[in-house]
Amino acid sequence: MSVLVVGSVAYDTVKTPAGTRDDALGGSATFFSIAGSYFASVSLVAVVGEDFLDEHVRLLESHSVDTSGLERSSGRSFRWSGVYSTEDINARETLDTQLNVFADFSPSLGADHRTKPYLFLANIEPGLQSNVLEQMATRPELVALDTMNFWIDGSREALTKALQSVDVVFMDEGEARSFSREVNLTAAARNIISMGPKTVVVKRGEHGVLVFRKDMVFAAPAFPLDQVVDPTGAGDSFAGGFIGYLAASRDLTDRGFRRAAILGSAMGSFAVESFSTDRLNGLTPNEIEKRFRALTALTQFDPLAADESLPWRDGVATSV
Amino acid sequence: MSVLVVGSVAYDTVKTPAGTRDDALGGSATFFSIAGSYFASVSLVAVVGEDFLDEHVRLLESHSVDTSGLERSSGRSFRWSGVYSTEDINARETLDTQLNVFADFSPSLGADHRTKPYLFLANIEPGLQSNVLEQMATRPELVALDTMNFWIDGSREALTKALQSVDVVFMDEGEARSFSREVNLTAAARNIISMGPKTVVVKRGEHGVLVFRKDMVFAAPAFPLDQVVDPTGAGDSFAGGFIGYLAASRDLTDRGFRRAAILGSAMGSFAVESFSTDRLNGLTPNEIEKRFRALTALTQFDPLAADESLPWRDGVATSV
Repeated sequence: MSVLVVGSVAYDTVKTPAGTRDDALGGSATFFSIAGSYFASVSLVAVVGEDFLDEHVRLLESHSVDTSGLERSSGRSFRWSGVYSTEDINARETLDTQLNVFADFSPSLGADHRTKPYLFLANIEPGLQSNVLEQMATRPELVALDTMNFWIDGSREALTKALQSVDVVFMDEGEARSFSREVNLTAAARNIISMGPKTVVVKRGEHGVLVFRKDMVFAAPAFPLDQVVDPTGAGDSFAGGFIGYLAASRDLTDRGFRRAAILGSAMGSFAVESFSTDRLNGLTPNEIEKRFRALTALTQFDPLAADESLPWRDGVATSV
Repeated sequence: MSVLVVGSVAYDTVKTPAGTRDDALGGSATFFSIAGSYFASVSLVAVVGEDFLDEHVRLLESHSVDTSGLERSSGRSFRWSGVYSTEDINARETLDTQLNVFADFSPSLGADHRTKPYLFLANIEPGLQSNVLEQMATRPELVALDTMNFWIDGSREALTKALQSVDVVFMDEGEARSFSREVNLTAAARNIISMGPKTVVVKRGEHGVLVFRKDMVFAAPAFPLDQVVDPTGAGDSFAGGFIGYLAASRDLTDRGFRRAAILGSAMGSFAVESFSTDRLNGLTPNEIEKRFRALTALTQFDPLAADESLPWRDGVATSV
């Protein structure tokens, strides 16, 4: 099944403990598209400026990403610049944000895009997220939404409305707490589920994700890497692997969501191994399967058999 | 197999978002002993003051903990007081530390204790940890050590020496980074393993633990709870379940260490459900097995079968 993503395509200038990179291809829709492209045909809706390089269009197209929805406006592309901390690779400081053509982004879907069965609303203004969903000719099989603190703080009402119509919500743990006004993460996720979405994915950076559904909580770890080169795009690459797998397998059961989280974790771990989309670009199916198996080895243990007991101290089992 | 623990027995006054408790039974050896007692016979070596209540000796003995090594000195017991943050339950501020009789703690093992096959050196001065190990008549099957930033900053040399003689090291992630001087957690653990210990357990609070061994990394999640009442003792209860299981199963393979981490996580999750050892005290084997199974459900997913492929987008598998 094919996936439609609406979000940002940008140029990022980042400084991390591993080095610096100027004007690197970035943006939520970019990372999502390339990560998801291994599993599903992805159509991208975004806006770039006159400065956007043809080679980056060709890069997306080399992953069979449909770029017919990549609007080119007069002006410059969205540009972000930030520094990651040496002590804590998850801590970043934004140095500069230039929205440029993204400031007036008002996605208008083509006829082909309105019937896509999987939809990912990347982190954009929640009113636009609702508007995109309303443009769909038929309700997709699955609609997922990502957001950020800026909208939670400034557009809570619009975000709440958008949330009510989607199936899957991605938030990081701070966002989930802030949005639900619950300190406890389980309580936060349950609160968000009570608003409508059947699945809440709480992202915890290097600590992995928790996936909450009605009768399920699943913890997927992040893959421990020897070196994180650039965390930019990890969350969107996670979402790309997650939604891409669901679209490819069409397994929307708990089983499917568990595997989707592991594949999301795999794709997120590749994304941070290099600057920009460098590592994501040239992956092979074999590399992705190998990381899936490595995540299996990381988490699996011998469960208790149905008739098995733990080795209790003498007296414990009988005394209580 | 039986386990010897050398550490602190204390009275804690804590304030958490769930309430306050004055002069509650605490201390590393206390939490470790009670958590471990479900799996193994535990002997405790510690010191308390004249204020230590008989009912707390009886509580330990109700778990078959051998208290013959619980020395009673003139003076008051170790007392600690702290406040946990409302925003972040893992952040705590120490209000007061009164070492009292613990300041002169110099453990002297009885003949019975010197032959114990499993030894847990809880967080005490590293020179004392080495001294305890030297007192053992025979090298135990397994020696584990816990420590804290205070010793890493102030007694690095003594701690390094102690580490070289043990099998398992417990540190939280900040301690592992600070001790190894490596920001990356994998690099930090590999650095510590290169000093001697075959197993490094990196504790990450509500994010679970990572267990590093020569050819293994295992991620055990924390059990997501609806409410954390009091985090005090979580790490020592984790260690009690972990070492207790290893002593009971005598499975010192990767398989055993994986299960040990899950049982540690189970016992840690019980510890934080109430103040002091309240929840740990009255557990049943059934409750512990139920949590082990819940941790199984939290982490398990369908691995890829040997001959199974992921569902790739058409063209991906053949184009690369």
